[in-house]
Amino acid sequence: MKDRTMIYQNEHFYIEKEEHELPWVKIFTKTPYKELTDLPQPIFNELWSLYAEVETIMREYFQPDKINMASFANMLPRVHLHVIARYTDDAYFPNPVWGEKLRQGRKIKEDFGAFYALVQKRLKEKEEEL
Amino acid sequence: MKDRTMIYQNEHFYIEKEEHELPWVKIFTKTPYKELTDLPQPIFNELWSLYAEVETIMREYFQPDKINMASFANMLPRVHLHVIARYTDDAYFPNPVWGEKLRQGRKIKEDFGAFYALVQKRLKEKEEEL
Repeated sequence: MKDRTMIYQNEHFYIEKEEHELPWVKIFTKTPYKELTDLPQPIFNELWSLYAEVETIMREYFQPDKINMASFANMLPRVHLHVIARYTDDAYFPNPVWGEKLRQGRKIKEDFGAFYALVQKRLKEKEEEL
Repeated sequence: MKDRTMIYQNEHFYIEKEEHELPWVKIFTKTPYKELTDLPQPIFNELWSLYAEVETIMREYFQPDKINMASFANMLPRVHLHVIARYTDDAYFPNPVWGEKLRQGRKIKEDFGAFYALVQKRLKEKEEEL
């Protein structure tokens, strides 16, 4: 793939990694929409189904203390979901990662590259089931 | 209603207002779950359907520049959605409201109480359609 931030794409969505000390991916619709309620109903439903897959894989792989999910897009009004694995000893916890940094956070021991590869593999398998 | 923060409830969910200078409500499942992927599939689908209703009413009533939505629950791990109306001249924009305050924000001119009443009315009407 030319775009080194993209880790998966299908007909309606693509998923990017966020370069961060925490596990963090972003789910975008290929067609840009300003708000979640601007998505056509089938795309809205498909987004949440895809989100659930990504959250499930992230929980299995990183065993985080909590998942954080958010949709802001204030700078550039183009809907996308942030999916972030959180730990009680990460740099911001219990603040959102957009809040105040409270400490030197834990070093994540899992391999991020292997996680991105797993996301791609599992979502491709899911596609073939349909 | 005894609980003065609750503005709506149905069989599976309740909605609370957040006391804030910005329009902000929180959608909770009545049964507590730690993560979104812990919700049974019908409840997960119903949550996003309810979210879409709330976002729609908030957009119509406040005409905000952007909607922000988030699920964190780091302090108390019990899934709920934040739904917040944002304006380019509010106190935090373009930061999330959990980020740095950048200015004295605009005073919202719309009546919050009338908005909560509208949410209740519209969601009750929706129930009766089903």
